[in-house]
Amino acid sequence: MLPIVKGLLAGERRALARAISIVDNDEPESREIIKQIFSKTGSAKTVGFTGPGGAGKSSLIGKLIPECQALGYKVAVLAVDPTSPITGGAILGDRVRMQGSLDDDKVFMRSMASRGAVGGVSKSLRNAIRILDAAGYNLVLVESVGAGQLEVEISRVVNMTVVLFTPHTGDNVQAVKAGLTEIGDMYVVNKSDLEGANALYQTILDLIGDTERKPAVLRASTKTGRGIKELAKNIDKFLKEKSINYKERERKMLEDELKDMVLNIVEEKVSSMLAGDKRYSEFIDKLAKKEIDPYMAADQLAKELFSR
Amino acid sequence: MLPIVKGLLAGERRALARAISIVDNDEPESREIIKQIFSKTGSAKTVGFTGPGGAGKSSLIGKLIPECQALGYKVAVLAVDPTSPITGGAILGDRVRMQGSLDDDKVFMRSMASRGAVGGVSKSLRNAIRILDAAGYNLVLVESVGAGQLEVEISRVVNMTVVLFTPHTGDNVQAVKAGLTEIGDMYVVNKSDLEGANALYQTILDLIGDTERKPAVLRASTKTGRGIKELAKNIDKFLKEKSINYKERERKMLEDELKDMVLNIVEEKVSSMLAGDKRYSEFIDKLAKKEIDPYMAADQLAKELFSR
Repeated sequence: MLPIVKGLLAGERRALARAISIVDNDEPESREIIKQIFSKTGSAKTVGFTGPGGAGKSSLIGKLIPECQALGYKVAVLAVDPTSPITGGAILGDRVRMQGSLDDDKVFMRSMASRGAVGGVSKSLRNAIRILDAAGYNLVLVESVGAGQLEVEISRVVNMTVVLFTPHTGDNVQAVKAGLTEIGDMYVVNKSDLEGANALYQTILDLIGDTERKPAVLRASTKTGRGIKELAKNIDKFLKEKSINYKERERKMLEDELKDMVLNIVEEKVSSMLAGDKRYSEFIDKLAKKEIDPYMAADQLAKELFSR
Repeated sequence: MLPIVKGLLAGERRALARAISIVDNDEPESREIIKQIFSKTGSAKTVGFTGPGGAGKSSLIGKLIPECQALGYKVAVLAVDPTSPITGGAILGDRVRMQGSLDDDKVFMRSMASRGAVGGVSKSLRNAIRILDAAGYNLVLVESVGAGQLEVEISRVVNMTVVLFTPHTGDNVQAVKAGLTEIGDMYVVNKSDLEGANALYQTILDLIGDTERKPAVLRASTKTGRGIKELAKNIDKFLKEKSINYKERERKMLEDELKDMVLNIVEEKVSSMLAGDKRYSEFIDKLAKKEIDPYMAADQLAKELFSR
């Protein structure tokens, strides 16, 4: 067994942090680490938090941690922030710590940069969750700092997704409608102490009334503390009640992962076939001279690669 | 020839807008449109604008348009904004139009949603640029609303990248250093009327003094109008002077594109091979039972696929 694996299984925080860095950067050791811990995983539940910038995701997570601990969970937080090189990705840990209400020894927090392509985020995240799982954390809260495609990708890797709204978003029906995506397992009107929170809450309830699935809609305020305990309880309930679907979801996740990994291998193989390939170079020449269009060139080249 | 191609070649704005939507959404007609226009492309130059949120990208582009027109360019603007479903992606057109200084008939502006994976942005963008090129626009300004990976991807598709800073960013050396990425062909201290602009400008110059490439550093203010004309002239100069390298860059772009497209075809083929495949299903079962780890499962399955 690798020393780092021994360390993380013993709950050493430095080994844990280093192992997550290794999988986040896709270093060669990733493979051996995952291989050695894989059979020890499968207990952790994962919750993604998503919503527009300024929705108060990190503050809410900061307040949720002690409530989840009170329910018996050993909690870890992963913040996925593959944004600008200027802001970097390592902000959340500090931000959450600023809440002051946390016991650093009990909770583990990490930002993940995942600078690679969008597909890289899933891979990093899946393996970071496995490492935390093997180290004994049984609840991993994932904050998605990015938006759009990233949110969807993260939702495929976690057991449930909580979507945040705030009164700042307004109760504009179209905007709220756009936020009620297929990825939301639960909706929270955050900053519920602000004006407009009730109208927003009502708008969401009305819109959800039209949908087939009826995810819970909650209100929470990190300022007054109202609704936080209830949110933790609802998350706990969701994670436990849906245990039958959960197996299916787990299988679907493994299916996605295996497919992603096979595609990566195939991509690498094709890339290495193309590197320095004469026909590839000839097709580029033809494209540069506009003798062929990109679609036709790709079709013909792919056909040739397969027939070799 | 497709009626829509006939329309866009005749400069009809509706045909142009529709054609860009078709390639942005990767609709089946994309293929035929690109095929029919491909030989008519190759004249347009493209400039990417990147920088942190609040750097004033759209305002600066708004002011640059008439200056570039004065230099003889027919200008189009594409804003790539694959962000949250809540904010949507169709903001820039309106934002730029608000500048008021623009003649709507001369400039064409479009937001691109490109909701797909990161690789999808390049594909959409390359083809949207081709459509504008064929329609007679010879300068396409690309605003990247997103950050990080997206900026890098866009830089691979354009002829030059202008990176914006503002005094808000501060003259913090580390932050500026992080922004002086390999993708910057030109740096602009925007909002140069604000306090701290000169210090920031000096910091950038000092840092660039250490690098091998020495990209131009300019100052501009949309408020006072200073530096805008000079920026347009510098962009024009860059696009013309580097004409020798430009051919090489064009070839590199075609190389990247052809590879991306071949990989897409291969991916689709592998995906369809996996759909309903018995061995794939067996490996997922083994993973669910933790009898095999994901790396080993992927290796074995990929090997089997190749040997069939």
